[in-house]
Amino acid sequence: MGAATKTVTLDGQFRMHRGGELESPTLAYETWGALNARRSNAILIFSGLSPSAHASSSKADPSPGWWEEMIGSGLPLDTDRFFIICVNSLGSCFGSTGPASVDPATGECYRLDFPVLTLEDVAEAANGVVRHLGIERLHAVVGCSMGGMSGLAYCVRHPDEVRAFVSISSAARAEPFSIAVRSLQREMIRSDPKWNSGNYDRDDGPIVGQRLARKLGMITYRSAEEWRGRFGRERSTDGLGSGQFKIEFAVESYLENVAQKFTGGFDPNCYLYLSHASDLFDLAEYGGSLASGFKRTKLEQVLVIGVRTDLLFPVHQQQELADGFKAVCKDTTFVRLDCVRGHDSFLVDMDAFRPVLCEFFDSCGCD
Amino acid sequence: MGAATKTVTLDGQFRMHRGGELESPTLAYETWGALNARRSNAILIFSGLSPSAHASSSKADPSPGWWEEMIGSGLPLDTDRFFIICVNSLGSCFGSTGPASVDPATGECYRLDFPVLTLEDVAEAANGVVRHLGIERLHAVVGCSMGGMSGLAYCVRHPDEVRAFVSISSAARAEPFSIAVRSLQREMIRSDPKWNSGNYDRDDGPIVGQRLARKLGMITYRSAEEWRGRFGRERSTDGLGSGQFKIEFAVESYLENVAQKFTGGFDPNCYLYLSHASDLFDLAEYGGSLASGFKRTKLEQVLVIGVRTDLLFPVHQQQELADGFKAVCKDTTFVRLDCVRGHDSFLVDMDAFRPVLCEFFDSCGCD
Repeated sequence: MGAATKTVTLDGQFRMHRGGELESPTLAYETWGALNARRSNAILIFSGLSPSAHASSSKADPSPGWWEEMIGSGLPLDTDRFFIICVNSLGSCFGSTGPASVDPATGECYRLDFPVLTLEDVAEAANGVVRHLGIERLHAVVGCSMGGMSGLAYCVRHPDEVRAFVSISSAARAEPFSIAVRSLQREMIRSDPKWNSGNYDRDDGPIVGQRLARKLGMITYRSAEEWRGRFGRERSTDGLGSGQFKIEFAVESYLENVAQKFTGGFDPNCYLYLSHASDLFDLAEYGGSLASGFKRTKLEQVLVIGVRTDLLFPVHQQQELADGFKAVCKDTTFVRLDCVRGHDSFLVDMDAFRPVLCEFFDSCGCD
Repeated sequence: MGAATKTVTLDGQFRMHRGGELESPTLAYETWGALNARRSNAILIFSGLSPSAHASSSKADPSPGWWEEMIGSGLPLDTDRFFIICVNSLGSCFGSTGPASVDPATGECYRLDFPVLTLEDVAEAANGVVRHLGIERLHAVVGCSMGGMSGLAYCVRHPDEVRAFVSISSAARAEPFSIAVRSLQREMIRSDPKWNSGNYDRDDGPIVGQRLARKLGMITYRSAEEWRGRFGRERSTDGLGSGQFKIEFAVESYLENVAQKFTGGFDPNCYLYLSHASDLFDLAEYGGSLASGFKRTKLEQVLVIGVRTDLLFPVHQQQELADGFKAVCKDTTFVRLDCVRGHDSFLVDMDAFRPVLCEFFDSCGCD
C-alpha cells in the first residue's frame, strides 16, 4: 500500500453473495479532490482485475497511478470539481481483504478457504467504503474492464445511490471466449507445481504459471493489428533464452519483458479468485434477462465506451450494453473508439479516451 | 502408422535449410487413386501441424482420415481422376523422421539434437517422395494451415514441378500475433518439469504442458462467434474438477475434453520443432520481398481460400496471398468463406469447402 492509501474496516459479518462470510473485512482506498458540502460530487472508480487503489499520484504519494493521465486538476476526472474514490477490490492484495489476508478466525491466511468471490461482493464492499465516507448518492460510477461489471452490479443493487454510470471496455456478462481464456490462465497457475494447491511459499510461489498467464493476458489485452504495425517480423536483439528455443522475434521479447515485470507483484490465489469472479458475473441474473437487469438501474446519464480491436470485451458487447441502457435511460451515449491497442487502450491510448470522458463530465454539470 | 502408410528412405545426407543434416531420413506417406500413364495427375497434400499422412480411408486402412470428406471417388480430390499423395511432415512423429526418431549416428533419439526445422525442409522432404514416385510435375499442390506455407515453399523452390496451387487458411508468413500464440504454447510445454529439457520419459512426458498448449490452440483455432452461439453461458454438467476451481461452464468442459483426447498422441519435441518452423517461414526471404517470392513461382492456376473468422491466419493474410499471386498468375481465384468455426473450418465445415475445391478441380481438367 502506498502512503496515500487509507483503510476502513467494515465491522461485523460481511455476507458473501454466493455464501460464506468474512469477519470485519478491511478495504483499502484512495481519494483525490474534496467532497463538497452537499456530498454530491463523488465519483467512484472500479478498476480492472490487477490494479491497486492508487489510480493517480497525490502530494501524499507522488508515484504515478494506473490512470494518472485521467485524474487530476483539469483532467477528465477533474479533482477541482469532483471527489474521486478508488477502492482496491475485495479479494485483491493491495490492502483490501482477500485470499492472501489473515483469517481472524484461524490466524492463518485464508488461501482457498476464502469464500467464492463475485463482483457483487466487490461492489458491496465498495459501497461500504462510500457509506463510511458519508456519501448517500454518487455523482457517478466509472468502471473499466472487470470494473465495468463491478460498477454494473453497484448500479443494479443500489439504484438510488448512483446518478450516472460510465462503462469502459466492459460487458453485461462474460462470453465463452473470454471465459475460456481466463479459465486457461487459471489452469496455468494451478498447473505450476509450486502453486501447491494454493499453499505456496510466499517467497517461492508459482512464478512460472503466473508468467504464462500474464503472457496469455497480453495476447488478449492487445490486438493483432497493433502488433502487426509495431513488431511485424522484426527480430529480437536482447538474446533471451538459448539453444533451439532462444527468443527470436521482437514480439516474444516484448511478452517476456511484460511477464517479468508483472510476476511477483500479484498474489496468485487473489488472481484466481478475481479472474473467476469475472466469469461468474451476469446481469441477466437480476430478473432473468439482460433487459430486466437494466430495468433495475435508475441512472440519469450513461456513457458506454468500447474499442473496435478489443478481443476480450468485443465491440458488439459494448453495443449490447448501450442498447440495454438506452431502453431505460434516454441520456445514454455510446462511443466506439477506433484504437488499435485492443482492450488495454483505456490504459495506454489516453488521447482517444480523455476527450470522451471530458465531454461527458462537462455536460453533466456538478450540482 | 496405419496399414496403408508406406515409407521411403531418402538415401544419403539430407541437408537442412538452416544448417545441419540428417542421415538418410525416412518419410511416411499414403496415396489414393492411380497415377496415370503420363504421370500427370498427381496432387500433393501438405497437412497442418499435427495430422499424419492418413488423410483418408482406403481398403488397406478403413479408419477415417483427417480429411475424409474431401478425398475419394466423386469428392473434390477425386480418386477416380487424381493420384493423391499425403506425406507426414519431416519433423513429425507418424513414421517420418523427426526429433522422436533414432539418430543413426548415436543409436539414441535425436530429441533436441535434431537440427532446426523449417518448412523448406518439410517441402524438400516431400519433394523427395514425389521424385521417388517418378513424378516430374505435380498437377497440384494443396496446403492447409501450416501446410499452405510448406506448399508455398514447394512452389517457390520447384517452380517447374507444380502446375497449380491451392492455399487453404494459410499465409505468406506468420504475423506477430500468431508467433506470440505459438511461442507461448511452446513455453507451456517447456515449462512443464516433466519436459526435462527435452529428455522426458516417453511414458511420463509433459502432459500437463501439452494440455495447456492444446487448449490455447483450440481458443485460436475456433472463434468467439462460434462459441457464443454454441455455448453461450451454458453450465457444464459433467462435474469435472472440484472445489473452488471445478469446471463451471460448458466451454470449459469442451476444452477439457479436447485436451484429454489430443495429449499422448503427439510427441512434445516434434510439436516444438514444427510449431517453431511455422514461425520461421517467410516468403519474403526469396528475393527480399513478398512480391519477389511470388515471382519465383510459375503456376498456371491458383486458388486461395480463407475464412472470415480465422484468428490465426486472418482473412487479410488470405487477401495478401491472393493479391500476390494475381500479380504473377492471371488464373488466381480468391474465395473468402463466411464460416463461423474459424481456422478449423477447413476440417469441420466441409459443406462450405467442398464446392469450392470441386469447382477448382473441375475447371482445371486433367491432361
